[in-house]
Amino acid sequence: MQANLRLGLAGLGTVGVSVMRLLAKHGDELAERCGRRVQVRSVCARDRSRDRGVDLAGVNWFQDPVKLAQDPNIDVFVELMGGAGGAAEASVRAALNAGKHVVTANKALLAAHGVELARLAEERGVSLNFEAAVAGGIPIIKTLREALAGNQVSRVAGILNGTCNYMLTRMEKEGLSFDACLAEAQRLGYAEADPSFDIDGHDTAHKLALLASLAFGTEINAAPDALRVEGITRITSADIQAADELGYRIKLLGIAEKTAAGVEQRVHPTMVPKSSAIARIDGVINAVAIDADFVNKLLLVGPGAGGDATASSVVGDIADIARGTWLTTMGRPATKMKPSVPPNAASVAAGFFVRLAVFDRPGAFAAIATRMAERAISLESIVQRARAPRADAPTAHDKIAPQPVILITYETTEAELKGALDQILADGHVAEMPRYIRIETF
Amino acid sequence: MQANLRLGLAGLGTVGVSVMRLLAKHGDELAERCGRRVQVRSVCARDRSRDRGVDLAGVNWFQDPVKLAQDPNIDVFVELMGGAGGAAEASVRAALNAGKHVVTANKALLAAHGVELARLAEERGVSLNFEAAVAGGIPIIKTLREALAGNQVSRVAGILNGTCNYMLTRMEKEGLSFDACLAEAQRLGYAEADPSFDIDGHDTAHKLALLASLAFGTEINAAPDALRVEGITRITSADIQAADELGYRIKLLGIAEKTAAGVEQRVHPTMVPKSSAIARIDGVINAVAIDADFVNKLLLVGPGAGGDATASSVVGDIADIARGTWLTTMGRPATKMKPSVPPNAASVAAGFFVRLAVFDRPGAFAAIATRMAERAISLESIVQRARAPRADAPTAHDKIAPQPVILITYETTEAELKGALDQILADGHVAEMPRYIRIETF
Repeated sequence: MQANLRLGLAGLGTVGVSVMRLLAKHGDELAERCGRRVQVRSVCARDRSRDRGVDLAGVNWFQDPVKLAQDPNIDVFVELMGGAGGAAEASVRAALNAGKHVVTANKALLAAHGVELARLAEERGVSLNFEAAVAGGIPIIKTLREALAGNQVSRVAGILNGTCNYMLTRMEKEGLSFDACLAEAQRLGYAEADPSFDIDGHDTAHKLALLASLAFGTEINAAPDALRVEGITRITSADIQAADELGYRIKLLGIAEKTAAGVEQRVHPTMVPKSSAIARIDGVINAVAIDADFVNKLLLVGPGAGGDATASSVVGDIADIARGTWLTTMGRPATKMKPSVPPNAASVAAGFFVRLAVFDRPGAFAAIATRMAERAISLESIVQRARAPRADAPTAHDKIAPQPVILITYETTEAELKGALDQILADGHVAEMPRYIRIETF
Repeated sequence: MQANLRLGLAGLGTVGVSVMRLLAKHGDELAERCGRRVQVRSVCARDRSRDRGVDLAGVNWFQDPVKLAQDPNIDVFVELMGGAGGAAEASVRAALNAGKHVVTANKALLAAHGVELARLAEERGVSLNFEAAVAGGIPIIKTLREALAGNQVSRVAGILNGTCNYMLTRMEKEGLSFDACLAEAQRLGYAEADPSFDIDGHDTAHKLALLASLAFGTEINAAPDALRVEGITRITSADIQAADELGYRIKLLGIAEKTAAGVEQRVHPTMVPKSSAIARIDGVINAVAIDADFVNKLLLVGPGAGGDATASSVVGDIADIARGTWLTTMGRPATKMKPSVPPNAASVAAGFFVRLAVFDRPGAFAAIATRMAERAISLESIVQRARAPRADAPTAHDKIAPQPVILITYETTEAELKGALDQILADGHVAEMPRYIRIETF
């Protein structure tokens, strides 16, 4: 058996402790699988005195993660601190410069500096593995980087944030409001005290940028002009209910799609047909769907977060290093990655769900339909419910009070739809700018 | 860039031709990913004159696959002929003995000789990769062998045969009989002229034996005393309809489960709750569900067959070799694999669906319930429909004509259930040995 593979582990939060527990529990088995033992040699964490329930006897403590990263007694630096810059960035750079392999769960760091760090890793001939950075325990990095090496991917789309999926599931199943769901998710520990990073879609965006780079061989690009992000804060129970009636569910998806003009990356609430497998992913679970030319369609489903599931991916990455596997970070040389050129916004055609607050006046509906027709937008469904009769006689006010109308369009572009809706608003037939949600088929 | 990786490809059927097409279409991209070009140097197929629509100019032809396997001009032998022995076995052995890497899609060969071939590959320091042998384009081998290296797996269960899943789906959705579905599947090319290998469950069994070995570190064992196999030929529309009414679907699953007494491997029609993701895998699609201690639950869904999807996996295996990745065949040294000791049959507790043809006589039902209670089998549901009233008056004959009763039991063992049903039959209250189908939860 070869010499031990020695780890330096920076960050002893939930994931770090799970990694320690896993190595303690399955160390013998892992050694048999890898042909060598994996050993935590050094750690770094804020509070040394805290009892974490794991045995740290014989492990070296560092105050400074950069010093830990340079420890001559470690072979692999495991970064579990988080953060796009600061100590995480400095220590990962230091480790790579010192010729150490790096395993990280840090999506923010890679979304910001991934290409540069990949180049550095390749120059030094070490691994930079990050399975845990996207979709927790799901082996999506390995699948895109290795298993699908023979495919040209056309789309990768996923439920990449468990908090948002939990909330949307609860809103749908229990008819709860957005605010009630958020409070519940916070109480259960699924959402942070400041939930904006999750519910505004930025967490999903970081993960999507990594998946897009792996899928399409383009540089990681999470800049706002290359990756449109819309969170779930504007989704209402009414949207969810209307979607349900029309055979759809609303999911927050990160979608990267290859178009003739470039790679389109977007994060937004999406209508998915109820019959699709991805529509049925409930709760804090994540799922990633891949469309590729030879394999056709793959779907991977599993836990997107949690200490143990994330530790499973971290240790999978460590096992690859222990077994002597070396791959380029993004599945091809970082120097050969193509620039990520965003196409014109909304170039990919899709159907849309549109919710309008229409003034109930003669001709209103004809005028709306005409504006759609002018831009060659055909309608697949129209749902307009008669209001419940009122006890009092109709008044002039009642006649012009807006009533909800739901449209499902056939394929069009977002630019055409937005143009039509702008004109409908200008015509004065609707009370507010109509809401629309893109439909994605699987 | 390193020297080309030179392939010798034995078998130019659907999969072989797809591999050639893939390499022609994505050769440049693959070379960039792997740092070297992958080149088909030699091939072997029965009929040299047939036009396969792929360019074979400059490729060496061999009559004998064993000679191809020993060709000094190849680095990797790609076996796509099939068959548990014969030319496939002889040529794979020859390739390994000659120090060539082997990539194969041949589940039957590995189910029969996998441990021995793995040892041989490890002695020679070459790869024996077989992603395409199980679940077509789904990267399940890579997931179990690499990504989940840090986990202890407790169960792996899958829809591993597209033909059977297509037939069960059609029986359910269209109410077709088994025979009508089989004829349709044959017409569409989803089932062979002799379908017994698929519908009797043996194809699933071979794949399951490979998954079980990877999951549990035991030697591959597809012998009848270690792997119980029951196909779908006895499933009727009545079973499917009764399952549907009780909230279940019937799927042919291969299930390997770790028990205190050993690894239980079984292939049989299984009732799965409609709410589970695996229940919703329709048509020729495959799916594999893994339960493991750190990742908890993973589900992988994708095409289980077809030339292109299988080629995707074959080329993924080739890419690993091109990139210099070397792993033991079954994820740990073949010399360290534990013997596969089958536990006592039916030791894992489960709920069961039971269909009885009960004679409509006073006391019959009480007697049946008593036999169940004697073996501590509790009943979760009982469905007994009143028969439609008949125009003619009840006769003695009518009174004793059997009527269908469906029971769903709580957890028990198959041995206890079978004991109770044997007694119920002996008591004379049922017209035939009751049918039962195991319930599996996900």
